[in-house]
Amino acid sequence: MEPKIIPDIVVGRLPIYLRALQRMLQEGKPVTSSQELSERLGISAAQIRKDLSQFGEFGKQGTGYNIEFLHEKLRQILKIDRMWDLVVVGAGDIGSAVARYQGFEDRGFRVTMIFDNDPKKIGTQIGPFTVLDAANMVDTIRSNGIQIAMIATPAVQAQAVADELVKAGIRAILNYAPLNINVPEGVHVQHTDPLTHLQRMTYYL
Amino acid sequence: MEPKIIPDIVVGRLPIYLRALQRMLQEGKPVTSSQELSERLGISAAQIRKDLSQFGEFGKQGTGYNIEFLHEKLRQILKIDRMWDLVVVGAGDIGSAVARYQGFEDRGFRVTMIFDNDPKKIGTQIGPFTVLDAANMVDTIRSNGIQIAMIATPAVQAQAVADELVKAGIRAILNYAPLNINVPEGVHVQHTDPLTHLQRMTYYL
Repeated sequence: MEPKIIPDIVVGRLPIYLRALQRMLQEGKPVTSSQELSERLGISAAQIRKDLSQFGEFGKQGTGYNIEFLHEKLRQILKIDRMWDLVVVGAGDIGSAVARYQGFEDRGFRVTMIFDNDPKKIGTQIGPFTVLDAANMVDTIRSNGIQIAMIATPAVQAQAVADELVKAGIRAILNYAPLNINVPEGVHVQHTDPLTHLQRMTYYL
Repeated sequence: MEPKIIPDIVVGRLPIYLRALQRMLQEGKPVTSSQELSERLGISAAQIRKDLSQFGEFGKQGTGYNIEFLHEKLRQILKIDRMWDLVVVGAGDIGSAVARYQGFEDRGFRVTMIFDNDPKKIGTQIGPFTVLDAANMVDTIRSNGIQIAMIATPAVQAQAVADELVKAGIRAILNYAPLNINVPEGVHVQHTDPLTHLQRMTYYL
């Protein structure tokens, strides 16, 4: 097993497989097949088998995959067999919704802080969190050793926030702001923008 | 120009280019180059030139792209040179945040209704919207001729909601629920799940 040679596009499909397996576990299913996963996910069975085979031998010809075993293996490969702390920057509608979202913890993540620079928001309560002053963000993140952040600020602030986060030691950023941000090598960014998804579909309407 | 032969992955990059061009317009820039777009987006200049050339001749060797012209052309290609109405299903944290989000209208979309099946939520106010009873969803969507919907329900309800939406004539679905949904041919689905983005990054940490 050589993790370094796995293409990022394959890595990107593992969370999709994991999510389907988690759902099957909840349904009480013991085994599945690349064929069944294919029907649920719209990814070809051959692709699924090829992707998984890059990480080891997880299934047996004719008997399929043990769901609990494969689920646990994927959690290990994606390093979410532990709990990752993360911070949210921006306490607007999106940031607040993310901070209150209940679905992180059983998938490996725990929101621990939310920051904003608006004096009207600092000190207010969002779910279990008190909004913290972004002026102390770098020190607070660094002293807590947090590596993952979500940016939910207006677009105009997102790059400056990303620069601060990198200074604070953040190594993975999920960016909800509707523009691309630049980070140094070794820091990972994923963008999530509902508009780019919508615009991709209207092309076909 | 044969729109049918453009690979979906190319179509998927056009909204990213459009977003960068919109930003450049706001900055007051008149022209750009594949090189400059490449630096902003982390996509190679050759790829950008190749993608755009599939839709026509938009730039001149040595002088680059007229931003306003290319921006308008991409809006036409993606069919967002008009306004698309959309509905939100699910008035929880995510659905509420989406319904209140201010960033849709200048990018081609207008939220017009939000539905829920929880009697405690029906009739309450979210921003400018009164939450409507999901029991009337199919008729209401059909009589308004709406083609685009966002699903922001719990995972367990998402497939049933998708089936109803398809019955109502919806042809494009942005799915915020954390599972894959199945739809008939001719209906487009995009998934957006922050957890799959986060899990893709922890692999590298």
